[in-house]
Amino acid sequence: MIDLNADLGEGFDRWSLTDDEALLSVVSSANVACGYHAGDPATMRRVCTLAAERGVTIGAHVSYRDLAGFGRRAMDVPADELAAEVAYQIGALQVFARAAGAAVAYVKPHGALYNRTVHDAEQAAAVIEGIRLADPALPVLGLPGSQLLAAAGRSGSTGIPEAFADRAYTPAGTLVSRREAGALVTDPDAVTARSVDLARDHEVTAIDGTRIAMSARSLCLHGDTPGAARLARWIRDALETAGVQVKAFA
Amino acid sequence: MIDLNADLGEGFDRWSLTDDEALLSVVSSANVACGYHAGDPATMRRVCTLAAERGVTIGAHVSYRDLAGFGRRAMDVPADELAAEVAYQIGALQVFARAAGAAVAYVKPHGALYNRTVHDAEQAAAVIEGIRLADPALPVLGLPGSQLLAAAGRSGSTGIPEAFADRAYTPAGTLVSRREAGALVTDPDAVTARSVDLARDHEVTAIDGTRIAMSARSLCLHGDTPGAARLARWIRDALETAGVQVKAFA
Amino acid sequence: MIDLNADLGEGFDRWSLTDDEALLSVVSSANVACGYHAGDPATMRRVCTLAAERGVTIGAHVSYRDLAGFGRRAMDVPADELAAEVAYQIGALQVFARAAGAAVAYVKPHGALYNRTVHDAEQAAAVIEGIRLADPALPVLGLPGSQLLAAAGRSGSTGIPEAFADRAYTPAGTLVSRREAGALVTDPDAVTARSVDLARDHEVTAIDGTRIAMSARSLCLHGDTPGAARLARWIRDALETAGVQVKAFA
Amino acid sequence: MIDLNADLGEGFDRWSLTDDEALLSVVSSANVACGYHAGDPATMRRVCTLAAERGVTIGAHVSYRDLAGFGRRAMDVPADELAAEVAYQIGALQVFARAAGAAVAYVKPHGALYNRTVHDAEQAAAVIEGIRLADPALPVLGLPGSQLLAAAGRSGSTGIPEAFADRAYTPAGTLVSRREAGALVTDPDAVTARSVDLARDHEVTAIDGTRIAMSARSLCLHGDTPGAARLARWIRDALETAGVQVKAFA
Repeated sequence: MIDLNADLGEGFDRWSLTDDEALLSVVSSANVACGYHAGDPATMRRVCTLAAERGVTIGAHVSYRDLAGFGRRAMDVPADELAAEVAYQIGALQVFARAAGAAVAYVKPHGALYNRTVHDAEQAAAVIEGIRLADPALPVLGLPGSQLLAAAGRSGSTGIPEAFADRAYTPAGTLVSRREAGALVTDPDAVTARSVDLARDHEVTAIDGTRIAMSARSLCLHGDTPGAARLARWIRDALETAGVQVKAFA
Repeated sequence: MIDLNADLGEGFDRWSLTDDEALLSVVSSANVACGYHAGDPATMRRVCTLAAERGVTIGAHVSYRDLAGFGRRAMDVPADELAAEVAYQIGALQVFARAAGAAVAYVKPHGALYNRTVHDAEQAAAVIEGIRLADPALPVLGLPGSQLLAAAGRSGSTGIPEAFADRAYTPAGTLVSRREAGALVTDPDAVTARSVDLARDHEVTAIDGTRIAMSARSLCLHGDTPGAARLARWIRDALETAGVQVKAFA
Repeated sequence: MIDLNADLGEGFDRWSLTDDEALLSVVSSANVACGYHAGDPATMRRVCTLAAERGVTIGAHVSYRDLAGFGRRAMDVPADELAAEVAYQIGALQVFARAAGAAVAYVKPHGALYNRTVHDAEQAAAVIEGIRLADPALPVLGLPGSQLLAAAGRSGSTGIPEAFADRAYTPAGTLVSRREAGALVTDPDAVTARSVDLARDHEVTAIDGTRIAMSARSLCLHGDTPGAARLARWIRDALETAGVQVKAFA
Repeated sequence: MIDLNADLGEGFDRWSLTDDEALLSVVSSANVACGYHAGDPATMRRVCTLAAERGVTIGAHVSYRDLAGFGRRAMDVPADELAAEVAYQIGALQVFARAAGAAVAYVKPHGALYNRTVHDAEQAAAVIEGIRLADPALPVLGLPGSQLLAAAGRSGSTGIPEAFADRAYTPAGTLVSRREAGALVTDPDAVTARSVDLARDHEVTAIDGTRIAMSARSLCLHGDTPGAARLARWIRDALETAGVQVKAFA
């Protein structure tokens, strides 16, 4: 059993990046932008309604306050401000999830905030504080071994480890930096096969060819590339053919 | 029995307008800015905590998305976008109210949105739709006879009429336009006396000297002028001396 | 001789609407978004560089401060604030035009500001004041008979009338409202033929079939629809075949 | 001869921090906020007009795009985006300076961008690139020994070193971190005396009591504290009494 999550609702008024309708027919969990890197309120409402109709679990995709940089710029936000900003975004999304007859069921940081809280213990703790302000029962999705999941554990929150079938791993189980050759797995067949490895066998082949253990309860699919929705569908089909049930963790 | 409401938390990061602490010791209801005309998340959190500590009821002071104009610029926002924007703001504030052990108990539009929804039935309906998306039980504070309160009534929401002791009224019971002479009552004694008239006698002296009926369940105090907190204290003292209990309507 | 103008650079960070490179090979004037409805600084710089390389004239596409509504929401902005906001946008674009070895050569209001200043004399005057703050020599592109062009004339600025080959006109020479049937001309052959009518004959067929005079020095092409760049190319080819030279008015 | 500079126009619509009129009667150079950490266009226009009337030189106080954090949050902005953002702000201010019959005569980074570019060579180079996009002749005001002044030098721009009379210095001539005791000099007499030391003698007493050389062409006065304008006036009077002429460097 595995969860499939993807970033959705990453538009802003007339602009959009993702084919939300197509992806919502594949994933079990939708990371919905909350207005700080993308996601105007009308888009948030629409995506929550679509997700609820399809039985897809709704998560808050919280970000630095950086619309002009799509949330990809790391920021030195003081802990109390960061916690409040995270809580603000979750609260705003909760309205639309509830109005659609659903609920915000988890949180996942976006972009630079996701990357920063892998290593930055202070910001990781601030994000967890913000989540707990909104709802102490909310699990948080993150990288295995990250400060984010460590902070969740220390606070009594549930951390959910996720993996990336289209990213290369070091033998130590960390992601190969995007700046290095081979960091991205672009062959659709390879991505699909690695998805099955991760979901069924809790293993993946590292960049040096060794086989490593990787315990993830969710796989992150990318939705903002051409053909993304089609690849996501292939992965889901391959998982189901391999006997893996796709189901939200939350 | 009367409610006293005032706009609070109208700061943004280092900037502030109102003496929140002083006003929270006087009013029974706090209209808290939600980020669209003022109110960064850390300020919202702080004001909700202070209000809850003092037993002051928390309301969402929702606005057009116009930080650069402090929400004083009327905007032709399509109804579906306006409803979603209102809901977004309420949801964000709900997090901080709940985290403080309280709840958002009512909604009041700010500035240009307040003025526009006096006459604009479509935007009034959109605001009510947004409120109901967030919580159908939330009452809405507005001007007697406004489209806003009419829309609330049509939707099954509770409209709460408010009055202004420092504004002149026409014999017909509407506010004298700020562009006309005598629109503002600036003498503190007069404002205080009018507050008692409104709260105890449900009457006020109109600009032509006639005495008119004015049924308000809340008086709006202004907090952004020099001496505002002191005048608010005088009004509350005068009301209590006159045997009027100050108590939140919600 | 006719000018062809189109809106360009209507992206924001990762988001985009228009195929800027394709359109820049067709038009003679580029209305470049200046950050208030679209257009982050890096995009503004890139578009100015491309325009200058291709010899396309650069205009400032100024807007209400409404990124969340793509500038399509009319706003009641006080005249002094509106003038300053217009000047701010022009100044920002001037830097990138100059850095590319070119200059901002005209101004065209965007979206709701364009529509509002057709009828609103006060906002029209404020836009012209803002333009003149930036550079009194800048011509302004607008609708024939608009308050905007009237205000330009009164201030000593040059107003340039433009026409739309893909919009229906009333017999009186005004645009048919988009809410009415037949407001948009969608057949590419018709749009192309009307372009030639407008550019060569200074005439166009109104919605009732009558032939009316229409004196425009520029035609506005739309760049944000599928196939927009291809249609723009057809129009230019048809104009040149008909002996009309495509050339910037500024 | 020494320049006195202060941050001005750090308001946003109804909010303000600084007593611009009082400070403009004291300083020789005004660092004017350009909209990214503070400074709506109408305020920018007003401050430029006042500065020009008083013969105060206008500088662009450029910032990270961080209105919600008042530009105090360091951001990992890619170099090309940072350069464009800096140029954008300068261009916007140039309009208001020119309209007031003056010109933007220098640039000074604000807050986190000022602090970051002391040590970060890449961002320092990006800021200089942005300045040179706007105007290669513009000098830049910064800390002696900073990467910012080094980058200016490498690019052929003029770097102007400034000093702070109200900040403690290490014996090595660097600022004592604000986190350490004694970092701020709060006694007005001491600040005034140190101003004369710096301006007349090019020396200052370090935190260990040693006397160190400090070659600054400008002193930065703080305008956002109570009594700031009065202290600024004392400093100017003391300088003039000591025979130091206050005069803009640019």
